[in-house]
This record gives sequence, structure tokens and C-alpha cells, in this order.
Amino acid sequence: MKKYDVVVIGGGPAGITCVISAHNTYPQKSIALIRTEEKALVPCGIPYIMHSLNSVDEDIAPDKLVTNTGADLIIDEVVEKEEKKLKLKSGEVIAYDKLVIATGSLSILPPIQGARKEGVFIVRKDYDYLTNVREYAKKSSNIVIIGGGYIGVEMADELLKEGKTVTLVEMLDRLLPTTMDHEFGNKAKEILEAKGAKFLLGQRVDSILGNNKVTSVMLNNKAEIAADMVIISVGARPNVTMASGFGLAVHPRNGIWVNEYLRTFDKDIFAIGDCAAKYDFFSGEFSNVMLASTAMAEGRLVGSNLFSIKVMRRFTGVLGSFSTKIGDTAFGTSGLTEMKAKEMNMDYTVGEATTVDRHPGTLPGASKLYLKLIFSRYSHTILGAQMYGGDSVGELVNMFSVMILNKMTDMDIDNLQIGTHPLLSASPIAYPVINASVDAIKKWYKYET
Amino acid sequence: MKKYDVVVIGGGPAGITCVISAHNTYPQKSIALIRTEEKALVPCGIPYIMHSLNSVDEDIAPDKLVTNTGADLIIDEVVEKEEKKLKLKSGEVIAYDKLVIATGSLSILPPIQGARKEGVFIVRKDYDYLTNVREYAKKSSNIVIIGGGYIGVEMADELLKEGKTVTLVEMLDRLLPTTMDHEFGNKAKEILEAKGAKFLLGQRVDSILGNNKVTSVMLNNKAEIAADMVIISVGARPNVTMASGFGLAVHPRNGIWVNEYLRTFDKDIFAIGDCAAKYDFFSGEFSNVMLASTAMAEGRLVGSNLFSIKVMRRFTGVLGSFSTKIGDTAFGTSGLTEMKAKEMNMDYTVGEATTVDRHPGTLPGASKLYLKLIFSRYSHTILGAQMYGGDSVGELVNMFSVMILNKMTDMDIDNLQIGTHPLLSASPIAYPVINASVDAIKKWYKYET
Repeated sequence: MKKYDVVVIGGGPAGITCVISAHNTYPQKSIALIRTEEKALVPCGIPYIMHSLNSVDEDIAPDKLVTNTGADLIIDEVVEKEEKKLKLKSGEVIAYDKLVIATGSLSILPPIQGARKEGVFIVRKDYDYLTNVREYAKKSSNIVIIGGGYIGVEMADELLKEGKTVTLVEMLDRLLPTTMDHEFGNKAKEILEAKGAKFLLGQRVDSILGNNKVTSVMLNNKAEIAADMVIISVGARPNVTMASGFGLAVHPRNGIWVNEYLRTFDKDIFAIGDCAAKYDFFSGEFSNVMLASTAMAEGRLVGSNLFSIKVMRRFTGVLGSFSTKIGDTAFGTSGLTEMKAKEMNMDYTVGEATTVDRHPGTLPGASKLYLKLIFSRYSHTILGAQMYGGDSVGELVNMFSVMILNKMTDMDIDNLQIGTHPLLSASPIAYPVINASVDAIKKWYKYET
Repeated sequence: MKKYDVVVIGGGPAGITCVISAHNTYPQKSIALIRTEEKALVPCGIPYIMHSLNSVDEDIAPDKLVTNTGADLIIDEVVEKEEKKLKLKSGEVIAYDKLVIATGSLSILPPIQGARKEGVFIVRKDYDYLTNVREYAKKSSNIVIIGGGYIGVEMADELLKEGKTVTLVEMLDRLLPTTMDHEFGNKAKEILEAKGAKFLLGQRVDSILGNNKVTSVMLNNKAEIAADMVIISVGARPNVTMASGFGLAVHPRNGIWVNEYLRTFDKDIFAIGDCAAKYDFFSGEFSNVMLASTAMAEGRLVGSNLFSIKVMRRFTGVLGSFSTKIGDTAFGTSGLTEMKAKEMNMDYTVGEATTVDRHPGTLPGASKLYLKLIFSRYSHTILGAQMYGGDSVGELVNMFSVMILNKMTDMDIDNLQIGTHPLLSASPIAYPVINASVDAIKKWYKYET
């Protein structure tokens, strides 16, 4: 029986980061990472295997990220735990001192009749499965995507670039329905429509038709759409099966119960990433946001804190900072949307700014940038930011995460010292971060003579 | 005699921003901006009139920025002040309640023999002068630039794009000598050398030769370089002549004395922008950094606080956040360089990371990104960031400004929730902001068993 100081189960972003961080913090401890997959995928790259990447192999996280730390990488499946010993499918038994569960999430297969026909796929983080999805898409013409969240929209964009006929069906009345305000979903729709996509919003797929193989999709309004391939991307749920088998407290929709430091009820077991419960940054309620970046922040924290708490958690709760690119337009969001602010009954102000991200705007590479900020009306702190524009959105969104986490106010932002450059950013006088804050200030400010 | 509640003298970024902010905060006050120039230039765009812009007119700040607020724009020169009345060159007299001086800075003409010959130019913020510089460059072949700071380097890049033979002479032994560490200056040099520029570093221009018109430049080592045009960009000094004439306390090198809220010794007179004294964010000593973005932060603050202090100054001292682009590589810096940290006798650690700003790095638009961070070794706060990479540097540098201003520590950054996307940013596992912080942590962290 082999014994490790630290065993991490799961080879996704959370698991890998946790190993690296554990090795950095405790260089003399022995570490193993156990995963079932031969090859570990980079989750956010998956939609891009359809067109931008030349193969699924280009979307693989290299094993050396783990093995370079000196950790053992074990391809096997954990089937049982007894005390502090794990029994693997191969028969091997591995003992641990500290255990980290990072079993990720599973794509939801909704109860649609015919969803198991040939040509119907979910978005599974599995190399062979995705290789098949990619090949199947190459030879298909009419592709129906079910679900208009990020993955569905990114898939649509990629498949359009491949020259496919793409129809996207979304139950709610807009794209990116849970993560961005409607004007952003509308913008994404407009971009993809211009490239030929068809959208059926506010509609549900009732059944998938065809003999063995899909030939069409039937909506709840009885409309039928020809399809030789269907991709379902309607979200994921935490993979809690193993943790549940270990006797840990789990909630099937919200994940493995963990405290502030991602520790489970068992003091030697931690859970990180999509499988671990998360709390919303603003409400403290359970959050269903699953992001590699959140998973990795958790992996780093737990990796450092395994044997004693070394890193105080400065920020708790999931902010939900993410970005994507649809056509040539980048989208980003961090923190509260207006939609969520309403839902939470927040008293808020909105600040907006539209600009061009070069100055003067005639310079090459210039894109229109639209920014929408949400502030707490009376406490003035920034709660959220949404934007679309050029590629600079990729880092602009992170700048807002830093501002939100630091509870900066509209006045603090008005005070900011920012750098701008003609070839890289908006004119300082049109800098949208400042101007949208000033716009919000104008909403509550009353001039008294 | 006309009377205004607020008079701003100077039409650059500080002055314009101050008018906008004053109007937003005090919509019922009457405001005038007085400037001598017929047309107001955008200072950071000046180097780009050489190639990227089609004319000097593309680099003009539109007057409607001022007039749209309802403020009067007066093209005239203030020649005298008596009590709270300004006498203009035209003979008009204007009374004010609050006065804001935003007279900017003047390019330094070093005492080089022959510097007044035809074909020798400084970088003056003047429409007619720059139109002449642009035309003169178009018909010149061998151009010598004196000074290797941002403007000199940007000019060199632009003139190379115009197909000119460019030689740059810098007194110190590196490019960007006062604002970035030597590895960044070296990188800029390497990029421009590959495009054909010649650099003479650690050398001084002794005299400019030719009859009326420049024909060559003589260095202190007696080497002679053929030149039909010379551009001098060796810095600027605050334009304090008017303030001095008004009896305000000024220092010829450091500017008009102002307190924390940019107020001069006269309680009804403020000074903002390049002409106002600035203090270093870290040392509290005088700072010579002159940036439009700093000037505008000051303009906003004073505009809001003219009649009572409404906006608490959250951050004092000049951070010096800026970015530029040389060839296809963007450079950015915010806060302390290692060079300055040494000079200040700071006990610091350096964290570095190199990555590719797309993931996987085979995706289109990917650029190598190098990041260097400076932390206080014992108090752990981030003090500075320097980087080069793709265009995302333009906003990445501002994210660091926000971190520095919020006194975030290496551990705070390790805790950050950041969004990344394949088409927009580095892989979350290679995200340089986190990885450079972890690198710094490794420098002080001692593992104890």
C-alpha cells in the first residue's frame, strides 16, 4: 500500500492548481493526483475544437503541469474509501493524510424524448467523446444547438465559421440568459444572426426525431427543424457521487458542503472546483456559477492551507467574472447584473458609457466599447460590470473584479489614475471606466445651491 | 466686465476635464475656459501624427467637449491678474470666483549648440508647429531623435513606418531610462533595431552642424551623424510663468505648490495637470511624472471640489501608470520599477511570469506576455508592475493600478477570482498576474516541517 501526504482526486483545473500550490507550499510532502481520464481537457477551450483549434489534442492540459512538481499522476478510478485509505479500480490501495476532492461537474442531459439517438451530443469533458463530436460536426450540415448560455453561443459561433447551418433553441427569451443583461444577449444574437445563425428563443425542444439517427427536432409549438446533429448545452451539475459515497454532506444541485476554507465535515478532506458548494459574493446564498477561474482560486487556497491555514481568504463568494468572444466582439461580466440586482432587491444605480477603444477612433484596431456598471445607490460601492467591445475586454473585466472585491465606490473610481494610449485604449477623456462611474454619480447626485 | 463663477486657464486634458467635472457638479455655475491655442491637441497622440494619423487635425480635442457643457471657450491670453480679475491680451477683463490654472508644461530645449537651425524641432503642443514638423519629416530622409524616453521611442517607431532612416541618441545607457527597468528598454531597442533603427546610447549630442539648415549631428565622442532633421524630446518642465506672475508659490522644476486637494496658497486658486506640483505615491517626494491621465484625475477632483470638498481623495501621489506600443509589442508600467525600489532603499521581492495571452497559444492573435512585479518583502503589498505583450497590456496595466492603490498583497492576488477566455487571455493556469505573485511569494516563503 502506497501512502501519500496529499491525494487529489480529479485532474481538471482545480485539481492541477491544487497540486501546484501544495507543492509550492509544502515542497517536502508527497503528493498524488488520481484521475480517470487518459487525457485532461482544458474546459473553456472545448467549444473551440469545432473550428479554431485543429484537433482536440490542442485542447489538452499537459500532464507535466502535475508531474513537474514531483507529484505522481495516477490514471485510475477511486471506488471506495475506508478510513484514510482509497481503493482503486485496479485493486491498488492508497493511503492519504489529506484528501482533496475535485471531481468537477457533469453536463445535464435534459429529459427530451429521443435524446439518445445517434447524432445527439452533450458537452462532455472527455477526449474520445469530443473527438467524435468534432468529427460528427465536420460531416454534418444542419446543426441544432439546445441552450443559449456561453457554451451554446460559442459553439454556434464556431460552427458558423465551419460553414454549418446553425439553429439555436433557448427556453428563455434571450441569449446568455442567466449571466448577462438582455442588451448583451441581444448584441450576441445580432452578431450571430448577421453570420447566418437562426435563433428560436422562448421555445423548448419537445423531442428529437429520426430512426436511429436524428433527422429533426420538434419544438413544443410543434414546429419541426431539420437537423443531422444536435448539441445539448443546458448547464451542468456538481459531480458529488464519490463524496456522497464517502459519507460527506452533499446537496445534489449545490455540491459538496464546504466551509469558508473549502473544508468538508471531515477535517482531512477538502472539496474544490465545480463539485464543491459555492456561495454568491453578494447574497451569501448558494451559487451555481461554475468557472475554471473560480475552481483554480479554490485550488490555490486549499493547496496552500492543507496542513495549516496560511492564506487568509480575503474574498468569499463567487463573483462570476468571465469573458467570451462572439464573432469579433468580446463580452465580459463581473459581479451583479441589473437583472440579479433587481432579483435581490438591491437599491442600485446604473452607469453607462460608450466609447471607442483607441484614440482617435480612426486608428487601426479600434472597436466600439459599451460598458454598463451597477452601483449600490446609497453605499456607493461597485457591484457589477458588463461590457462588450474589442479584445481588451479580456483584461478590463478583471480590472472590475479587482474593484468589486476591494469595495471601491463610484467616487474612488472617479479618483483613479489610469494609463491610456492612442494605440491601446480609449482617450483618457472618454475612458469608459471613469465615464460610466460619473454617469452613475449623476443619478444620485443632487445639486444644492 | 464679464464675471464667471469658474475660470479655467488652459485647454489641455486637465482643463477640459475640470470644466466637465465642474459642470456636472455645479450645473448652475457659469464657467469659462481660456486658452491661447486656436486648436487644442491630444498630447499622447502627437507622435502618431508622423504616420498612423493622416494629419494633425486627427489629433485635435474637439471644442465641443467644453462648449457642450455650456461653458464659454475664450481664445485669448491672460496677461495680468488683479484681485479676482484677469486681464486678457485683447483688452477684455474677466472676473472669477474660483480660478483653476492648467497651463501645462513646456518641452525642454537643451543647451546644444546649433539647436535653433532649420530642421531642428522640439515636441511642442502647437498645431501649426506640429503641422510643420509633420511636413518636414515627410520630405526628410535621415532623422536623428535626441532622447530615448516614451516620446522619442514612439517617434522612432512612427518614422520607421514612414521609411525613414532613424538614429536615436540617448544620454543614459538604455531606452525608457527613467520609467521602466532595463530589460524593458532593451526589449524596445531590440524591436526597433529589427526594423532598422540605430541607437547611440550613453552618448550626448554636442552640437548640431550645418549652415542655416541641419546637415549633421556631432556627438561628444566627435562622431558625426548625417541628418536632415533633428527631433529633440528630452522631457518637459512645468509651465509656471503665469502662476509665478500671480504671486503664487512655484518651484521652476516641480511646479506650482498645491495641497492634497490641488489648492494653491490662494484659497480661490487651484492648479492641476503638468503645471501643478506632484508627489510620488511611494515616497511623498516631488514627482516629475507628467501624464494626461494624472492631469485628468486632478481635473476631475478639482472640478468636483471647487466650492466645497465633495470628493475625498482616496489616493494621493502619482503612481505613474502608462502604456505604449512599439512595433507590435505593447509596454505598460504602473507604480515602482525595480530601479526606483533600489533607489528608495525598499526591501522588495520581484515576481516574474512569462506566458502567451491566448490559450492554447496556437490561437490567432497570441502574443508572448512578460510580467514583472515588485512587492514589499515584509508588508507584502504590491508596489509596481511592468509588462510587455499584446494589446491587452493597455488594460492589464490599469488593473495593476487598481491593485496598487488598494494596497493588495501577494496573498490577496493569489486569492483573486479572474476570468480568462481562450480567444482573449492566457490560460487560467498560466495567468501571469497570479503566477508572478506566486513567484514573488516563493522568494520570501520558508517551508518549515
